Amino acid sequence: MALLTQLGKIAGDHNVFSSREERFCYAYDGTYHLHLPDVVVKPQSVEQIVKIIKLANDSGTPVFPRGAGTGLSGGSLPVRGGIALVLTDLDRILEIDDANQVAVVEPGVITGQLQAMVEERGMFYPPDPGSLEVCTIGGNIAECAGGPRGVKYGVTGDYVLGLELVTPTGDLIHTGGKTIKNVTGYDLTRLMVGSEGTLGIVTKAILRLIPLPKAVKTVLAVFNDLLQASEAILDVFRSGVTPATMEIMDAEAIKCVIEQAGAQLPLDAEAILLIEVDGLPSAVEEELAAVAESCLRHQARSVETAGTAEERNLLWQARRAISPSLVKLKPTKISEDATVPRAQVPTMIRRLQHIREKYSLNLVIFGHAGDGNLHPNIIADERDAGEMARVEAAVGEIFQAALELGGTLSGEHGIGLMKAPYMLAELGAPGLAYMRRIKQSLDPNNILNPGKIFSS
Amino acid sequence: MALLTQLGKIAGDHNVFSSREERFCYAYDGTYHLHLPDVVVKPQSVEQIVKIIKLANDSGTPVFPRGAGTGLSGGSLPVRGGIALVLTDLDRILEIDDANQVAVVEPGVITGQLQAMVEERGMFYPPDPGSLEVCTIGGNIAECAGGPRGVKYGVTGDYVLGLELVTPTGDLIHTGGKTIKNVTGYDLTRLMVGSEGTLGIVTKAILRLIPLPKAVKTVLAVFNDLLQASEAILDVFRSGVTPATMEIMDAEAIKCVIEQAGAQLPLDAEAILLIEVDGLPSAVEEELAAVAESCLRHQARSVETAGTAEERNLLWQARRAISPSLVKLKPTKISEDATVPRAQVPTMIRRLQHIREKYSLNLVIFGHAGDGNLHPNIIADERDAGEMARVEAAVGEIFQAALELGGTLSGEHGIGLMKAPYMLAELGAPGLAYMRRIKQSLDPNNILNPGKIFSS
Ligand SMILES: Cc1cc2nc3c(=O)[nH]c(=O)nc-3n(C[C@H](O)[C@H](O)[C@H](O)COP(=O)(O)OP(=O)(O)OC[C@H]3O[C@@H](n4cnc5c(N)ncnc54)[C@H](O)[C@@H]3O)c2cc1C
Ligand SMILES: Cc1cc2nc3c(=O)[nH]c(=O)nc-3n(C[C@H](O)[C@H](O)[C@H](O)COP(=O)(O)OP(=O)(O)OC[C@H]3O[C@@H](n4cnc5c(N)ncnc54)[C@H](O)[C@@H]3O)c2cc1C
Repeated sequence: MALLTQLGKIAGDHNVFSSREERFCYAYDGTYHLHLPDVVVKPQSVEQIVKIIKLANDSGTPVFPRGAGTGLSGGSLPVRGGIALVLTDLDRILEIDDANQVAVVEPGVITGQLQAMVEERGMFYPPDPGSLEVCTIGGNIAECAGGPRGVKYGVTGDYVLGLELVTPTGDLIHTGGKTIKNVTGYDLTRLMVGSEGTLGIVTKAILRLIPLPKAVKTVLAVFNDLLQASEAILDVFRSGVTPATMEIMDAEAIKCVIEQAGAQLPLDAEAILLIEVDGLPSAVEEELAAVAESCLRHQARSVETAGTAEERNLLWQARRAISPSLVKLKPTKISEDATVPRAQVPTMIRRLQHIREKYSLNLVIFGHAGDGNLHPNIIADERDAGEMARVEAAVGEIFQAALELGGTLSGEHGIGLMKAPYMLAELGAPGLAYMRRIKQSLDPNNILNPGKIFSS
Repeated sequence: MALLTQLGKIAGDHNVFSSREERFCYAYDGTYHLHLPDVVVKPQSVEQIVKIIKLANDSGTPVFPRGAGTGLSGGSLPVRGGIALVLTDLDRILEIDDANQVAVVEPGVITGQLQAMVEERGMFYPPDPGSLEVCTIGGNIAECAGGPRGVKYGVTGDYVLGLELVTPTGDLIHTGGKTIKNVTGYDLTRLMVGSEGTLGIVTKAILRLIPLPKAVKTVLAVFNDLLQASEAILDVFRSGVTPATMEIMDAEAIKCVIEQAGAQLPLDAEAILLIEVDGLPSAVEEELAAVAESCLRHQARSVETAGTAEERNLLWQARRAISPSLVKLKPTKISEDATVPRAQVPTMIRRLQHIREKYSLNLVIFGHAGDGNLHPNIIADERDAGEMARVEAAVGEIFQAALELGGTLSGEHGIGLMKAPYMLAELGAPGLAYMRRIKQSLDPNNILNPGKIFSS
């Protein structure tokens, strides 16, 4: 295969992998799908990426950029064979600039490692996807990854000031820079964020840092009534507090972590809120009191607060146990993240519960309630065709519910392969055409991550 | 003229203006340039806009969207005649949604009016361009307008959650929504923000609101030494405080407001910082103390603080007097906003001062030092050809200095007509081509605001 030889010349033979075993290692992601690439390449420099992309254009070979492969929408899957372009070897933190409060990193840097390093220096990189111990900044940028802290601190896109990227036709360009403000032409930085590897390959990122909050406190509030919990959420925001996190778990999620992980929670609770406030110590105390008051005003049956790292860890245990508990039940996990305006959270949860009954599925509801970014997770068995058919119907109804409530298909996981068929429902034909025209103009040969976002 | 008749049929004859006097009223903006449109139209509905854009495409007529015409880069100027599309009649605040903390507005809403209305309800729309008493949300979105509060609260783009827009080919599309998170396909909302009316006409905007800070305090610090002032700025951020505003004035700006507006400031000061902190009362006290300490640590010769609205007003007087003072000197004001990383502010100011000497120009330096967004303003006389030639050379050197220091041509005023020739220097040929391809794909007939951003 001529392609293999050429790739070897560009990246070094030891960075090109073509055995079936090796290709299998890059055929999966956080979904339950599997697509084998024809070849796997681990470029060692941006120059190599430029050459690979030019080669791909010349030879008509599709390229599938890949970070850690933790994506939950099939973004990195090589659905058309071709090249799996694995960016994990470009993993240097190039600069932490204290005076300007920015970091310059390569795409393969692991999110959690960057966070640890800047926190040591009294700064803070807030985006906190659950996968942060393994996922990469490149993947975070491509998905605009969020996390619990999104409600106060925003998502990955809010921290990307500039990019170096290789375009779909193999040009090397720079967007933005170290300045917080930049209106020189179109905001290509933000266009790239969330473009899921379809408009360019991120080879370097300039990230904004902020001061590390000096204090943080956590509240766990248990409710007998889901609607009261939802009212408490709105009450917190109305009181002027923007908490750092505002997580919710519904009764089914609570049951799951009690049964599978032995969580110390009441089995008859209808909802749990996990709320964190951070900032200056004095402000945190004040906000903590306001949060507790909002919860109690709405009939929380208990409100626990924690200040030390250890105590906070205890409170977070139940929340963190959800995913591991789920996969103990069945092998195939379908993680959606349909998002609704904050005030619609209770209605959305009711509709999700109705969908659960209607299709008799194991559907648990948890997620980032503060920004309406719920995570309805269905746990099923791929080998059970009947169940999978019900899953598909349920997923369609979940999206329909989110859209009817003024929401969106995805708050942070992206469209990828899985949600591409539903794009039309959210965007309408002219909106989708406007997006598609951008893709076509920048990637005329449809080389970069074809089959994603837009269904073919 | 057939076009006039057709426009009259679409928008009503009384909303179509073609006399020379009327056209003159829409031929200017905040720059000193003048370009007459062939016709002025004030659409009364989005349906009319769709029809006008379709007509423009059919007849090959350029369309120049216009809000209040306060832009500082020539964005709204009808450089090729055609239609001045004035959006000020679409000025309804459609909804203020307290539960979701969003506002839905038409593009002609005046920024300051929206702010006043949401503040009455305990919420806050932070973007604060100096022109907020007259400029429109549509213009703010098209320019991604900033203001002093940008350093803590970000710019217009950070508050736009969703848009309704008419595309350059006359389709009506929607982007984003009322949710804070949305990763459904490309971030068209952010692509539109700052696109200066070249990629679509904003006909509705969903804006994010935040809780109104409960307290605010202001510090005015006077320095004998510009470098010490710059060090104080960095020190404030290093101490973990992100002030709501961090404005600077250099010696020439100070002199100007003393001489032209009778400001009570020492004539021999080299720099003044105007710093505001806001938030919970207890936190504000703590931050205020830290700010004062940072200033004193770096030899501030005086540090005044103000708490009441009246006292704050007094401190802001000098800052606000700059623009009116300048235009007393000469008629032609050239307002740049080249922006550098925060730590480069002192170097940039030195270079600007050097440029002032070199070209013997009236150049004053002030602006948003906290985010490196300086406003070097040159005051000259258009009728003095020699002086204007020196202005042109100086402006070129200002941009060069900003780029050499890792900055950008514009932090918040946009490229428009004035900075289009300098785009190549910042973006390079491939970067500019990538942008241009987006424009061409979305506006194949080059109808919408031609001649802007990209120089022809
Ligand atoms: C247990 C678990 C918890 C999670 N929690 C969260 C969460 O809380 N919030 C959240 O938002 N997500 C979450 N995710 C999803 C996932 O971790 C994120 O989407 C993450 O950003 C993916 O990063 P990655 O490095 O694994 O990228 P990959 O999965 O390898 O790729 C994701 C996408 O990015 C593209 N890509 C990767 N690198 C580049 C690059 N350098 N240039 C251009 N494109 C590139 C790929 O083509 C693909 O489209 C979770 C996943 C798991 C498994
Ligand atoms: C005294 C003064 C102080 C200023 N201070 C600041 C400041 O602090 N920060 C700052 O950022 N700017 C500032 N400006 C610049 C200016 O006010 C802003 O750029 C503002 O956003 C322009 O709004 P406008 O309604 O006047 O738009 P216009 O000037 O009419 O138009 C600006 C651009 O927006 C486009 N446009 C207008 N409406 C729409 C629409 N609905 N859809 C699509 N495109 C549209 C136009 O085509 C044009 O390209 C200042 C200007 C003045 C005169």
